Amino acid sequence: MSENDKLVGVIGGMGPDATVDFMSRVLAATPASKDQDHVRMVIEHNPRIPSRQMAMRGASENPGPVIAAMAARLESAGADFLVMPCNLAHAWQGDILAATTIPFVSIIDESVKSALCRSGEQSAVGLMTTPGCFTAGLYQQALADADRAVIAQTPDELAETMRLVEKIKAGDRSQDVAKGLRDLADRLIGRGAKILIAACTEFPLVLNESMFDVTLVSSTDVLAKKTVALALGSDDF
Amino acid sequence: MSENDKLVGVIGGMGPDATVDFMSRVLAATPASKDQDHVRMVIEHNPRIPSRQMAMRGASENPGPVIAAMAARLESAGADFLVMPCNLAHAWQGDILAATTIPFVSIIDESVKSALCRSGEQSAVGLMTTPGCFTAGLYQQALADADRAVIAQTPDELAETMRLVEKIKAGDRSQDVAKGLRDLADRLIGRGAKILIAACTEFPLVLNESMFDVTLVSSTDVLAKKTVALALGSDDF
Repeated sequence: MSENDKLVGVIGGMGPDATVDFMSRVLAATPASKDQDHVRMVIEHNPRIPSRQMAMRGASENPGPVIAAMAARLESAGADFLVMPCNLAHAWQGDILAATTIPFVSIIDESVKSALCRSGEQSAVGLMTTPGCFTAGLYQQALADADRAVIAQTPDELAETMRLVEKIKAGDRSQDVAKGLRDLADRLIGRGAKILIAACTEFPLVLNESMFDVTLVSSTDVLAKKTVALALGSDDF
Repeated sequence: MSENDKLVGVIGGMGPDATVDFMSRVLAATPASKDQDHVRMVIEHNPRIPSRQMAMRGASENPGPVIAAMAARLESAGADFLVMPCNLAHAWQGDILAATTIPFVSIIDESVKSALCRSGEQSAVGLMTTPGCFTAGLYQQALADADRAVIAQTPDELAETMRLVEKIKAGDRSQDVAKGLRDLADRLIGRGAKILIAACTEFPLVLNESMFDVTLVSSTDVLAKKTVALALGSDDF
């Protein structure tokens, strides 16, 4: 604990369980033996933000202004930097940046950095994500910028992923749901993926790395560890 | 979901895992099939608040002003009511009330109400708690006001409880810790307790009701359910 430790602002609620999962991974990633060793966070937990999946299909109101307003309130509350444990919502990162002056730590950039570090230079990255996040193209762009090949899901696979994510959001964390996601991951591996990015913060509610023979980069875990390192000053922006 | 739904302000971080556990119980207690069905919360997660246990022994600075400032910021952030998933911290409830104008929902009052509802009129209540919360006398007063007999822990039992709570706070959720707390509960039952109040939000991290032949009132669960009912307007203040 140090006076220089930073206050983390969390743009949360997308979805609610994913935010709580993120928080628990922040706690688990913190070297702590008592309450006071842990990092300070302010969380706006707003599950009422308009559906990001529907907005990407043009079928719902634009969630950008709501997300930006949350970010601005977190800055007003004293947050030193912002994180958002939802991949797709990063499609509205521009609204956040326009509304705030503090650093925003991108789950996309951090997950791609982690995937690049944890795999060989020629290893194709399998991208497990939702239809909205796929359409937004955030990961494809970041991986293309790094000259890294991507093994993408087919439209049918994306639709099946969404069906399973909706089950998780409705509280179903059964082995059936986990197996469904594992089967989808196996198809990416079968098509040549040497490392997987779990590019949806709902996935770690049912999946973990031990289920796979290849490396699974959990975007939630990556963001949690980066958050702790930045909050405790062991990492810079 | 309704426009009348309320924004919950959570005075959190005491301890960090207990706050995350509280949030997950709020989600579990919410009738929801999609993100937008869940309640909105703003959480000040501040594990750096001076030790409440030490303050009760006069060995640490007064945490009241820090807690009150958190409460005031949550009101400024638009919270419609406040909750605090830590029993002992309610010793500084007066500071919160003096700093805010919105309702504060007491975990003590709600847990006692639940215990009274769930037990016969003559049933003695076993009070499982920490030394600081015992010294504060919050539960003893509320139960005395209801003319209900209390079976209290001895100083040795309180010290042993604290030792186990410190293990939980350091991340130990082993069966040994759970068994230690169960043994302490069994002593209260042996001395005549017909119902137990788990008056520390760290206990549910290792204990659950199915471990006991008598009713165990989890203060965390009681507060989570009340929070959801108030946020969704199915219960009044």
